[in-house]
Amino acid sequence: MALLGGGTNGGGTLRLSRCWPATDAELKPLEFKLGYSFRDKAILRLALIHPSFGEMDNARLTWLGDAVLGAAVSDLLFTALPPNATTELLHNRRMELVRQESFAAGAARLGLQELLVVGKAYEGQVPTARMLAEAFEAVWGALYEDAGLHLSAVKVVYSRLFPLAETTVAAVADGNGIANGSA
Amino acid sequence: MALLGGGTNGGGTLRLSRCWPATDAELKPLEFKLGYSFRDKAILRLALIHPSFGEMDNARLTWLGDAVLGAAVSDLLFTALPPNATTELLHNRRMELVRQESFAAGAARLGLQELLVVGKAYEGQVPTARMLAEAFEAVWGALYEDAGLHLSAVKVVYSRLFPLAETTVAAVADGNGIANGSA
Repeated sequence: MALLGGGTNGGGTLRLSRCWPATDAELKPLEFKLGYSFRDKAILRLALIHPSFGEMDNARLTWLGDAVLGAAVSDLLFTALPPNATTELLHNRRMELVRQESFAAGAARLGLQELLVVGKAYEGQVPTARMLAEAFEAVWGALYEDAGLHLSAVKVVYSRLFPLAETTVAAVADGNGIANGSA
Repeated sequence: MALLGGGTNGGGTLRLSRCWPATDAELKPLEFKLGYSFRDKAILRLALIHPSFGEMDNARLTWLGDAVLGAAVSDLLFTALPPNATTELLHNRRMELVRQESFAAGAARLGLQELLVVGKAYEGQVPTARMLAEAFEAVWGALYEDAGLHLSAVKVVYSRLFPLAETTVAAVADGNGIANGSA
């Protein structure tokens, strides 16, 4: 997959360096990675503003994105796993996908650390997993809002970027964790 | 609002009496209350089968519905509350709406106790708040699936039945819990 612009992910430790919001052009590589072009670039820009920046920030979009991702991942798992998958299995798989570490890894994959706007006090610091995870959630909240409040857009984009098949469905196919019989 | 069929909600304590799945005709009053006609009645029927029944049950739809309701309510609050509403306020309002007691009350309002299918051991018993809340979640999971995986249907139906304005928006308009200034 060709990367359009943006810094490199390879090499040394990433540090936060941005104290100003991204331009439309600077958002393009992220949109390319998402496979989704925002109608309203402002909401994506807002998703990338850490509360330390001091003005409007991504906290509300993080809150929304957390719920939206939870539902999208639940829906994807509900459809992907066979009807005899237990709710315990569904729950455990979801926990793996929606925990902070997974979200932070997703943020790194999208290069969010290069776009995250922080207050001066955070400049030059290594981003925490929590900061990355919150920005990741906020991007999904923004995508959800931008797509006209249809969760399906989040599902489509998320499942293309993070196919459940890689981990979840394969594990089930191996007969790992499937209960037999009724409740 | 005219009630179509079904038992009455008034008077004495409600007890569970159903050990057989509802017919399409018996589901009509619920569909009428929801303002939504299911394309696939079987998924609504499944949503009303308590695990004590012993065969296919509503556990997976409950699991899905919980996440879907969480996202739908989050979305409705995100849109309804002003941009300066704090995430703490959003969180607290959501907690009020998605807790077991609220779901059980919603289930009673929809008359789910009259449709909930239980095992013989539960016949004649008073339904617990948890049983009602889980059936309530399962109905939303079913609605979400039936509507073609669009969360918007859940939002539209839920907000018509349980308008946020009644409690949430009014409280905010009174200046209750809104933070001033930036994070």
